[in-house]
Amino acid sequence: MTTTENAVRNGVDTATLFATLDAVKGDPEIAKFQFRATNRWLSGTHNRSTLHGFYGAKQEMTHKQAFTYDADHPPVLVGSDNGPTPVEYLLHALAACLTAGIANVAAARGVALTEVSSTVEGDIDLLGILGLSDQVRNGYRQIRVHFDVEGDASPEELAGLVERSRLRSAVYDVLANGTDVQVDVSTR
Amino acid sequence: MTTTENAVRNGVDTATLFATLDAVKGDPEIAKFQFRATNRWLSGTHNRSTLHGFYGAKQEMTHKQAFTYDADHPPVLVGSDNGPTPVEYLLHALAACLTAGIANVAAARGVALTEVSSTVEGDIDLLGILGLSDQVRNGYRQIRVHFDVEGDASPEELAGLVERSRLRSAVYDVLANGTDVQVDVSTR
Repeated sequence: MTTTENAVRNGVDTATLFATLDAVKGDPEIAKFQFRATNRWLSGTHNRSTLHGFYGAKQEMTHKQAFTYDADHPPVLVGSDNGPTPVEYLLHALAACLTAGIANVAAARGVALTEVSSTVEGDIDLLGILGLSDQVRNGYRQIRVHFDVEGDASPEELAGLVERSRLRSAVYDVLANGTDVQVDVSTR
Repeated sequence: MTTTENAVRNGVDTATLFATLDAVKGDPEIAKFQFRATNRWLSGTHNRSTLHGFYGAKQEMTHKQAFTYDADHPPVLVGSDNGPTPVEYLLHALAACLTAGIANVAAARGVALTEVSSTVEGDIDLLGILGLSDQVRNGYRQIRVHFDVEGDASPEELAGLVERSRLRSAVYDVLANGTDVQVDVSTR
């Protein structure tokens, strides 16, 4: 195969992927990123975030458009269901991060994928956030992700893509291990 | 003021909020929820999640619509920018959860809010996920949330809303403390 035929696999531009890795090896400052969100309260539990600008590769950058997302609570949680709950976005983020990683790892390993789909479940006992029990944590007790992966490799190799992605997933790391979260406020 | 005048504050139906608390006190099984996402890989780092069904209040439920969200990487991270990155959704989820909590706590405490807005920043060194350093974690090193809150209460009371929300936030808990995350796979 020629370089051109190899350049894109699973929709991943592997030539650019490897070039990016080489660039970062030569200048680790390129790898320092800062992502950002802004959020505005609308009414009740309904609010809206915008994701647009970020810092990376030693410069301020923007997505090609500003992405806006609404969150709310459903009626059973005294909201108006104008969007999913905040905790559901965590499940989406986890599936999305692991899936992107699977595609990248497969491309780097020369595996052609035909399907990657997943279901995520998160168990949460709301006695915590409702303030009705000090024995129950506020967040998810457990999150489970199940992947279905199809491609031109052995079952062991396909499962290995998922495992490698998990070991290099930013969202998995934060959800499994937590991170330093600082909250401050200005009032008027 | 009559009960009717008090029933909705900050867009929060406080009568229903307190009735829900009473119902859960009477039957803690009501508080056991399971949220879910499904995700499908599209191409490269581009994939799409759907959030629709969930379990809670002892029954299967659905949002009034299926919410779908795309995630991708920007070109600088070898993607096509068809959506925000998975890690940006974490920042949105955090702001959304804290903001919903602030509105609920304010309503319960009789504080009328006129503005709640926030900015969230997350610092991440991609040497981790790129596999170029074992000293650098994959996820955010730190996340910072700054709130601007305006309402008919003292600065201390307004700041207290944010603090109470943080202490009862499901997303804050998961991001700050981590949780049990299980990943498995079926292959074809």
